[in-house]
Amino acid sequence: MLLEHREDAAAEPEALNHASPWLKIRCTPEEVRAEGLNAVLLATPHEVSLELAPKMLAAGVRVIDLSAAYRLPAATFARWYKMPHPSPELLAEAAYGLPEVNRKKIAGAQLIANPGCYPTAANLAIAPLIEAGVVDRSAGLVCDAKSGVTGAGRKASLRTSFAEVAESFSAYAVLEHRHVPEVLMVSGLDEDELSFTAQLIPINRGILETVYFRSRNLHSERDLLAIYAARYADEPFMYVSPSGSIPDLRAVNYTNRCAIGGVFDAKTGRGVVVSAIDNLQKGAAGQAIQNLNLAFSLPETMGLA
Amino acid sequence: MLLEHREDAAAEPEALNHASPWLKIRCTPEEVRAEGLNAVLLATPHEVSLELAPKMLAAGVRVIDLSAAYRLPAATFARWYKMPHPSPELLAEAAYGLPEVNRKKIAGAQLIANPGCYPTAANLAIAPLIEAGVVDRSAGLVCDAKSGVTGAGRKASLRTSFAEVAESFSAYAVLEHRHVPEVLMVSGLDEDELSFTAQLIPINRGILETVYFRSRNLHSERDLLAIYAARYADEPFMYVSPSGSIPDLRAVNYTNRCAIGGVFDAKTGRGVVVSAIDNLQKGAAGQAIQNLNLAFSLPETMGLA
Amino acid sequence: MLLEHREDAAAEPEALNHASPWLKIRCTPEEVRAEGLNAVLLATPHEVSLELAPKMLAAGVRVIDLSAAYRLPAATFARWYKMPHPSPELLAEAAYGLPEVNRKKIAGAQLIANPGCYPTAANLAIAPLIEAGVVDRSAGLVCDAKSGVTGAGRKASLRTSFAEVAESFSAYAVLEHRHVPEVLMVSGLDEDELSFTAQLIPINRGILETVYFRSRNLHSERDLLAIYAARYADEPFMYVSPSGSIPDLRAVNYTNRCAIGGVFDAKTGRGVVVSAIDNLQKGAAGQAIQNLNLAFSLPETMGLA
Amino acid sequence: MLLEHREDAAAEPEALNHASPWLKIRCTPEEVRAEGLNAVLLATPHEVSLELAPKMLAAGVRVIDLSAAYRLPAATFARWYKMPHPSPELLAEAAYGLPEVNRKKIAGAQLIANPGCYPTAANLAIAPLIEAGVVDRSAGLVCDAKSGVTGAGRKASLRTSFAEVAESFSAYAVLEHRHVPEVLMVSGLDEDELSFTAQLIPINRGILETVYFRSRNLHSERDLLAIYAARYADEPFMYVSPSGSIPDLRAVNYTNRCAIGGVFDAKTGRGVVVSAIDNLQKGAAGQAIQNLNLAFSLPETMGLA
Repeated sequence: MLLEHREDAAAEPEALNHASPWLKIRCTPEEVRAEGLNAVLLATPHEVSLELAPKMLAAGVRVIDLSAAYRLPAATFARWYKMPHPSPELLAEAAYGLPEVNRKKIAGAQLIANPGCYPTAANLAIAPLIEAGVVDRSAGLVCDAKSGVTGAGRKASLRTSFAEVAESFSAYAVLEHRHVPEVLMVSGLDEDELSFTAQLIPINRGILETVYFRSRNLHSERDLLAIYAARYADEPFMYVSPSGSIPDLRAVNYTNRCAIGGVFDAKTGRGVVVSAIDNLQKGAAGQAIQNLNLAFSLPETMGLA
Repeated sequence: MLLEHREDAAAEPEALNHASPWLKIRCTPEEVRAEGLNAVLLATPHEVSLELAPKMLAAGVRVIDLSAAYRLPAATFARWYKMPHPSPELLAEAAYGLPEVNRKKIAGAQLIANPGCYPTAANLAIAPLIEAGVVDRSAGLVCDAKSGVTGAGRKASLRTSFAEVAESFSAYAVLEHRHVPEVLMVSGLDEDELSFTAQLIPINRGILETVYFRSRNLHSERDLLAIYAARYADEPFMYVSPSGSIPDLRAVNYTNRCAIGGVFDAKTGRGVVVSAIDNLQKGAAGQAIQNLNLAFSLPETMGLA
Repeated sequence: MLLEHREDAAAEPEALNHASPWLKIRCTPEEVRAEGLNAVLLATPHEVSLELAPKMLAAGVRVIDLSAAYRLPAATFARWYKMPHPSPELLAEAAYGLPEVNRKKIAGAQLIANPGCYPTAANLAIAPLIEAGVVDRSAGLVCDAKSGVTGAGRKASLRTSFAEVAESFSAYAVLEHRHVPEVLMVSGLDEDELSFTAQLIPINRGILETVYFRSRNLHSERDLLAIYAARYADEPFMYVSPSGSIPDLRAVNYTNRCAIGGVFDAKTGRGVVVSAIDNLQKGAAGQAIQNLNLAFSLPETMGLA
Repeated sequence: MLLEHREDAAAEPEALNHASPWLKIRCTPEEVRAEGLNAVLLATPHEVSLELAPKMLAAGVRVIDLSAAYRLPAATFARWYKMPHPSPELLAEAAYGLPEVNRKKIAGAQLIANPGCYPTAANLAIAPLIEAGVVDRSAGLVCDAKSGVTGAGRKASLRTSFAEVAESFSAYAVLEHRHVPEVLMVSGLDEDELSFTAQLIPINRGILETVYFRSRNLHSERDLLAIYAARYADEPFMYVSPSGSIPDLRAVNYTNRCAIGGVFDAKTGRGVVVSAIDNLQKGAAGQAIQNLNLAFSLPETMGLA
């Protein structure tokens, strides 16, 4: 059962029903208990999740939360979201829901914090490089991220109106996007080692991130791609492009897949990795289903193939 | 008089006429002489320009060439275009047509090499930083470039067909675009100091480039923006965004303007500069007119305001 | 001086300034008098125009109003805009600002009602057919109209958000658009003779209307096109496509031009006429300038070439 | 097994493999026999289908052909495709594959002619009106059709290049599209009763057709919608919008659904019906699967839900 909270829902129920008439989208902890549910997915703003998740957990259901409410350590949360975390005790318990990095903890968790869309694409590209120890961290990494418009959520705003977005391209968060701390947390990078910019592509779906790094101990492009091939050998949703091929959004949209390709110039030690996902699938709802499957020991690809 | 050479012109003259029926688009050196022209703009592939430009110069007219034929030193040209340069003696004479960097030489030139679209946006962002000595070159610069589809020229190809491009986003030249040597030549960077990737935005017009650098001696964002403000104080086509504002394509499309904005995090020494142009104007035809004005001592903005 | 009234202006002045920092966009009748202005263009909702126009006229300036406030007879206005007209005496005086149909009256007018965008494209296609008496009115005419998103104005709304509009196509006013009475008024058609549907193209600019009619006395496509060629022979902004060619939006966007093409099947008496304009130019601001030129006996194409 | 024939396949196998590496897309009648296949889907040009289908049928497999090769009577085919039909005897046997109209014949057919995309949307809207006898045929019907770009197939051509299509809208077949005879054949309309125009929407997927008619015996919008509701009551892929709602492409894209909505003005007897499908699903591959299911007595929605 998907729980979606919308302040404007009362104002335009018909729009809501038009979009998804088959969903029973509002429910309270009482309803959850009465209906004997096993899990709740919260697609709510973090303020709402912070209030609802404890009640749902208390009602005995597992919670998969798509907001940023339970992704970060309390201090980091407080810094980026300008409020103290109201239930720091839940943070220890919450599993960060990136299965390719954190599968074991997700499997047993009562509370799963579904990752942000940008960090999903970034961490799946960056984490293997850091783990493999091939990045010259003194030179820093760059992650130049581009997202379709649905990443901004569904609401009336000039910034996401057609006339503003179409036939343009813009950077809207340079160096300071709220999703940066999730990348640092998972990759282990320090804040001064990562430069991140978020940009808006005039399309609906898809995130493509271009990661630049330098290496002193990587010997060839083949070695770069081998790192990903080994790391993701058993992953059902990871696709590593062969040398010479770079993934685009067409390769991932409408799937739960993350596609990764890379180029490395051994002569100068410069590397580029491109990571692509569908922000509504692997970047949000699809990954939530993947986590739901893991939490209940179901086949991980169920409902996602 | 614009000279455009199209191999497929015979095959589809109606398409050509439909596009621009008012242009007299084909002419020979004989015609140029007979009509007493003063200048010719060559919007031809570099192979054609290499053949035509010497004849046009011999016919006594100034040449503004929009191809890569006369932009690079002979050795660099040979490496990237896989052929020896047939008239190296013309290269010494040719002026690289980026007025904001090379105005004086352009003014007297018989042969002007109009810059590539990507290098125009890149150099206008990077050159002032290098000149000011604020870049930590040991960490390298990253230029993540995005272009609308018209940058690929007008021809029938699957790669630029609507169904391939629309609703997607792709990187098509990672680390090795032909335009890179123009950026190195103008900025003075070494090859191992610059990582460049070219990507395709699903729109028609506009180039936006995001430049990442590190600095040890730059003290604030204000100082960063002051570098551009001083450097471009008298430039009619340069626009430097105030702090907190980053230019998008809407700010430059259908104009000959280049807009530049920047962010600098003094605590960690990381900087980002965004540069935007209309690839068909400042990136091609508009800059050619600007150069034409300079070559004939006309007001630089004539026909471009 | 353009007068634009926005209820949300206070809420987001930076957006407004960003869009057009060079315009002095708010002024009162007092300011108009103090500055000695000759004309005011009102780009305001009809409710605001109904209040402001009389004051501006009383202040001695000519008014070109882009709203529907003064386009229709009082009774028709009341029916479609659900309010009695507050100054019916001004309606007699107001000139409907479609120069190709009403040039003489516009020239001397103090108050000019700039036409709607849909009616401009429709009337320029339909009026000549009705005047020429070639339409079988018993079979009715169909006008299937399509518009880019800027036709809906600039405001935050889910209906014009990128995610709703992009990659879709929708009809939003079937048989009952507010602009229909303007078409009836100019063409002389009766309400039951015209079927009109307005549809949203996922692009920013441009209106294309496809008009279907039947004829018993038209003999050939050549005769159809000759009607337009004769009617618009001296019009600076009308372009009639040759037989076999149908205009698209590319032919008119970013110009004040209206392009018209037609097909006629003499065997069955069925005709189709396509009419295209840029909704922001010939459909709004461009036509306002054309009317301004006419009102002050300036060259009609001044500022519009 | 899908058989796709591409003249350019040899020239760019990698593009083909990139698009669909999991398909075994080329096979001969010999292979079909050797592998013991039951059915072949031909996604080939009509010239190729005309040659291959008889051989496949002779090899004992059922054929579902997506081209126009077996859709029309021999004389009509000859007129529109400028060649005599080489196997007129197969035409009697071939079932026109529009299940909502021809389900019984499809069920037992060896050769099924999958309909064109435009006729599918048109016939599902028009046929019920003609069957119900509510159309004033003396006034004629208008079908104003709009299609996304994938309707033109996948090939390199200037006409479907991004730069030509994006940010524009154009009519490309006025009154004389090859798909018109399919509409006449199914609906029973005469050629002089239908005016059809095909137009290109700058998006990838989806067809929306706006049908205009007049009626003397239809009493209300409710009655209009009741015709469709009754006609399609048991159809798994038909969706009839409630009064006041008109379907858009978002309602059908990525599904095999056809959505229909209507407006009727009883006072003047004018009606408008809007029909929407995904041209790649209900307009092509999806409908082929639906026909495959019918041919083999499988559940009609199998693989399409």
